[in-house]
Amino acid sequence: MFFGLLQTKIDSSMKEKKLLKKKSQNLSDWYTDVILKAELADYAPIKGCMVIRPYGYALWEGIREFMDSRIKKRGVKNAYFPIFIPESYLNKEKEHVAGFSPQVAVVTFAGGEELKEKLVVRPTSETIMYEMYKKWSQSYRDLPIMINQWNNIVRWEKRTYLFLRTSEFLWQEGHCAHLRHEESAKTVNWALEMYQETYRELLAVWGVAGLKSEAEKFAGGDQTYTYEILMPDGKALQGCTSHDLGQNFAKAFDWTVLDDRGKQVHPWQNSWGFSTRSIGGLIMVHGDDNGLIMPPRVAPIQAVAVPIKPGKIISDYVAKVVGRIGGSVRIEVDERQDETVGFKFNKWEVKGVPVRLEIGEKEVAESVVTVVRRDSGEKLKLRLGDLKAGLGKMLEDIQFDLLERQRRFTMENTHSVGVYDEFRNIMATRRGFIRAFWCGNPECEVKIKEETKATVRCLPLDAKNEAGKCIYCGGRSDHRWLFAQSY
Amino acid sequence: MFFGLLQTKIDSSMKEKKLLKKKSQNLSDWYTDVILKAELADYAPIKGCMVIRPYGYALWEGIREFMDSRIKKRGVKNAYFPIFIPESYLNKEKEHVAGFSPQVAVVTFAGGEELKEKLVVRPTSETIMYEMYKKWSQSYRDLPIMINQWNNIVRWEKRTYLFLRTSEFLWQEGHCAHLRHEESAKTVNWALEMYQETYRELLAVWGVAGLKSEAEKFAGGDQTYTYEILMPDGKALQGCTSHDLGQNFAKAFDWTVLDDRGKQVHPWQNSWGFSTRSIGGLIMVHGDDNGLIMPPRVAPIQAVAVPIKPGKIISDYVAKVVGRIGGSVRIEVDERQDETVGFKFNKWEVKGVPVRLEIGEKEVAESVVTVVRRDSGEKLKLRLGDLKAGLGKMLEDIQFDLLERQRRFTMENTHSVGVYDEFRNIMATRRGFIRAFWCGNPECEVKIKEETKATVRCLPLDAKNEAGKCIYCGGRSDHRWLFAQSY
Repeated sequence: MFFGLLQTKIDSSMKEKKLLKKKSQNLSDWYTDVILKAELADYAPIKGCMVIRPYGYALWEGIREFMDSRIKKRGVKNAYFPIFIPESYLNKEKEHVAGFSPQVAVVTFAGGEELKEKLVVRPTSETIMYEMYKKWSQSYRDLPIMINQWNNIVRWEKRTYLFLRTSEFLWQEGHCAHLRHEESAKTVNWALEMYQETYRELLAVWGVAGLKSEAEKFAGGDQTYTYEILMPDGKALQGCTSHDLGQNFAKAFDWTVLDDRGKQVHPWQNSWGFSTRSIGGLIMVHGDDNGLIMPPRVAPIQAVAVPIKPGKIISDYVAKVVGRIGGSVRIEVDERQDETVGFKFNKWEVKGVPVRLEIGEKEVAESVVTVVRRDSGEKLKLRLGDLKAGLGKMLEDIQFDLLERQRRFTMENTHSVGVYDEFRNIMATRRGFIRAFWCGNPECEVKIKEETKATVRCLPLDAKNEAGKCIYCGGRSDHRWLFAQSY
Repeated sequence: MFFGLLQTKIDSSMKEKKLLKKKSQNLSDWYTDVILKAELADYAPIKGCMVIRPYGYALWEGIREFMDSRIKKRGVKNAYFPIFIPESYLNKEKEHVAGFSPQVAVVTFAGGEELKEKLVVRPTSETIMYEMYKKWSQSYRDLPIMINQWNNIVRWEKRTYLFLRTSEFLWQEGHCAHLRHEESAKTVNWALEMYQETYRELLAVWGVAGLKSEAEKFAGGDQTYTYEILMPDGKALQGCTSHDLGQNFAKAFDWTVLDDRGKQVHPWQNSWGFSTRSIGGLIMVHGDDNGLIMPPRVAPIQAVAVPIKPGKIISDYVAKVVGRIGGSVRIEVDERQDETVGFKFNKWEVKGVPVRLEIGEKEVAESVVTVVRRDSGEKLKLRLGDLKAGLGKMLEDIQFDLLERQRRFTMENTHSVGVYDEFRNIMATRRGFIRAFWCGNPECEVKIKEETKATVRCLPLDAKNEAGKCIYCGGRSDHRWLFAQSY
């Protein structure tokens, strides 16, 4: 029997199109479905873990390349520290251990014997890195120490939510130590801006940069900055964090250096991280009922050329088209013989390739290419001579429009609220971002969360100094904070 | 008190120069010493683990960039699989588990509770990857699957030997599955050639490519290829491996696909890895009593400019010099005020920067730059107009000479031996590579090792078909194998 030959032409109507869940109906079901069908990732056979497949990993490579050049330009250097942290190290900073210990994975057995001291698989590397920083520095001349790692992190989760909540994830963690707080604060701010640039310029994801509340800040830090992104279901995703660690870890590790006046002082530290979670945000923000929509600048494949019929004439013309475009666009030609054109269109839509080039007999006859935008469905014919420039412009237009659409969505779903009933009502119905006065009291924060599910996301950097009253208790407040239900 | 100001000029005679151990006296002591002093790496506070410091990590980034573009060009795509492997998976391939289980680290506790199934921290990823490959493929149309990972690996070691033997190391592992053995064998061969290219073209490290003996091959594979490098002490370092896995894992995982004739068949697989161990080889091969010598193509810093005196005139001239060189060379200017010129010369020698530019009053007056080669000490003056081209040529010359020096060293220390007494004598004195006939019997292999410490390193790819007699038992042999004491 020749199953291979029988099973030749798979039509679009049979497979993915019908099966892909609708984003407009259930965001969460669609999200998982589109990740699996577009082959971005898959569930691993280990609780809480995922496999990042080549198409998804290419996104991470794009992000990494974009950020890595900026990190290096700042003078931060890449290095690698061990994945294992002695349990006693984690215990050195009290808040830090309290924050992370419920989530750690622990190696108790290695090389055929029980370990004397248990080793924690890093949930973040502050403690192991700073022990080395201490060893490497005696005086202010050895500062600043500015080091970044691209590595894997383990924080135990029982249920996997692909990219957004996994027991293991990939990230970069930058850790700098400075002689003065002022310099450290500058680095914290630079990292936040670099993250915002990555989200906006590369991923076309609008969001709000701001300061975390005491309750939501990093375990062991003084202040945490964040970039909060509004998802289509009105919930917020924390996109990254940049922490001002003060001198907390230096004190916990008893680390001092000689300053320029001959005094022993504790260095000022910061850490900042951006993870594969960002890919989850990217997917949710840009997709539609037909699948993913990749922002062109980070798209692993920016354009796909689909011959409408098989045969040498069209195939030769496709080669010519690709030659004309040159290396300026990441292009793929889909010449598979065992799939129909309809199936192919659908497949590349699910994968979110920003532009599709359709090439049939008509195009050959007219010396044109039919070009279709994934985001808007807009279709136009480009003459061969205009193709390279036209395609480049189209890709930049898509990039701009995606960001603009998300910006508008965020604006339209950000509510300035002065009355708690209205706050409650919004959170019970359409959700979104709420800007409201809050007195800063953690008790109000807890109550608001209990009653509405909304948490303080951040104090936006652009929040004005205003005289107001806390939305919950009526106490004095100087700023409107940003609230939302979080992922 | 102004310690900072008192402690100003540190002279070279005080520090590293005197303290650096001599390569010519004790390779092993020098090796560790130069790694620590050049700040390539440091011991971590976890048994068997190391920290790769920025200067060392930049080498890994250089290697990664070189190899990654070649891997991608071959059509192999990067992805990421979990660091944890369920114990039961490792157990599926018998030889595989027997080979790795003595070295694994095991997570028994995570997220606050004891795990039902223990998780092994990956010692290599065959088992976790192939379970997914099986899930992702039904027919020959889904083959080949060609995936690579850049990740961290854990194989427990009790004593750290920086870069060469550490409980955790970084590597890439490529894993391909093909419909036919022929295609898989081609990939195995391609990977070996790509590794050889990396060693020779990038790292300037000559070595011998060949096939491993049955006893030394990968646990679970059919055949293993290697690149063996002769170290200055006459011992051999295994530089990388490329494995033909046959259908062993496909069978163990009960993985079949429908072939193009409608039959269920097991795919043919291969895996290949190249690790941070290569940096250890690079260090040993190229350094001298004064420190490291970095091959220019991979050197994080290719040239360092040292102003001979402080002051604006020289400083301006240095800026002009750097401007003339442009972005074609990775250059660093050392304008630190708290170190003497002698100290600086020594510091950059220890770090192995291939070329030093000396710039003093004389150079300014004559519109020249004094250029010194790290490998040979050769010194010459280049006119400003010739600098860019001259420097580029000098860097390529150094690259070539380093490789040539190692090639000659390897040739001069490779002995074709026909009598076992001579074999024994060489291994007891100067060591080196020995080419000798061996019958293929593992018993002879074991005896030779017991009596001389030499192991079968490989059957070199260029070994001729000759009629000979086993150096140990006198039995029939068709090839001369390569023997050496291994690291």
